[in-house]
Amino acid sequence: MSDHNDLAAFLDEAWLCLEHGVTDKDAGARHPAFATVSPVGWPEVRTVVLRAADRATAQVEAHTDPASAKVQALRCSPFAELMVWEPIALLQIRMAVSVEILMGAAVTERWARIPSDARSAYGTQPPPGSPIDAPFDYEKPGQQSGFAVLICPVQRIDLVQLGDRHRRATFSIEDAWQGNWCAP
Amino acid sequence: MSDHNDLAAFLDEAWLCLEHGVTDKDAGARHPAFATVSPVGWPEVRTVVLRAADRATAQVEAHTDPASAKVQALRCSPFAELMVWEPIALLQIRMAVSVEILMGAAVTERWARIPSDARSAYGTQPPPGSPIDAPFDYEKPGQQSGFAVLICPVQRIDLVQLGDRHRRATFSIEDAWQGNWCAP
Repeated sequence: MSDHNDLAAFLDEAWLCLEHGVTDKDAGARHPAFATVSPVGWPEVRTVVLRAADRATAQVEAHTDPASAKVQALRCSPFAELMVWEPIALLQIRMAVSVEILMGAAVTERWARIPSDARSAYGTQPPPGSPIDAPFDYEKPGQQSGFAVLICPVQRIDLVQLGDRHRRATFSIEDAWQGNWCAP
Repeated sequence: MSDHNDLAAFLDEAWLCLEHGVTDKDAGARHPAFATVSPVGWPEVRTVVLRAADRATAQVEAHTDPASAKVQALRCSPFAELMVWEPIALLQIRMAVSVEILMGAAVTERWARIPSDARSAYGTQPPPGSPIDAPFDYEKPGQQSGFAVLICPVQRIDLVQLGDRHRRATFSIEDAWQGNWCAP
């Protein structure tokens, strides 16, 4: 745990946690909850895999199927919140992000780096969420046309760390990530 | 795991998982992600503790501070989605809910059942999210006026179970929870 009074160290700890989630399949930050607003205004949340976390650009990344409900939601309202719970650090990280959806030629390089056995996660037919008659009436051909990248520039970060005494801070791109403490 | 082709058994498994989360502090379903839409239309998501799950009434319950941002969000848009990941069953449960906020005399009975050392989670001063000068510049007097109950009648359930072959189904109060399979 970082120095209790050091805002910068608190933010450092969060980014280390996120970077760790990209490489360690067992890390809490590997699987953020990804919340969006549906086209009719309902909140939606599902688990995604954290594919990149870059502090220098304050950007995180997830991959998905362009036919998924979350992409439909993002086309109507391009904002999301990602939330991670890191059980070892007892740290909740929330990131408010705007989302850019990349597809086609813009994702060819990333697609080439995805192992062939992992490609089946993308391009399910019929598209994700479509009604089917029996549980396995679908195919996963694993085509690049079924692959989209969600580039997520982070606008705000809210950290809550549990402990003998909880502490919470918020950070924003608008104040150059200086942050401030707030009541938990 | 329930019979792969049995929709009713799949829903049974999800409710058992939720009921287990209420009583077992280590269960995945103990800590749902709780997504709302903020007053300005941004998605928000944070962890809550699952306090009740009743299949007969299709209702789940969480407790919070009435001064929290989630209550402010719910006063503008009384809809939420709860999402649970159960690592043993490899099961993701999403519940779209409408939310009724109970306070005051309506929660006196529940408040009386909360152990005194757990009451400090409610009624933080200044209210949760308020800027403070140093990380521990807050108090947790644990007063009933800082306690609200979120009663969440479930409208829809979306289940995704990972495995050699993934399976997904949706259930809705509108079709009396009969459900249908859908592409994962």
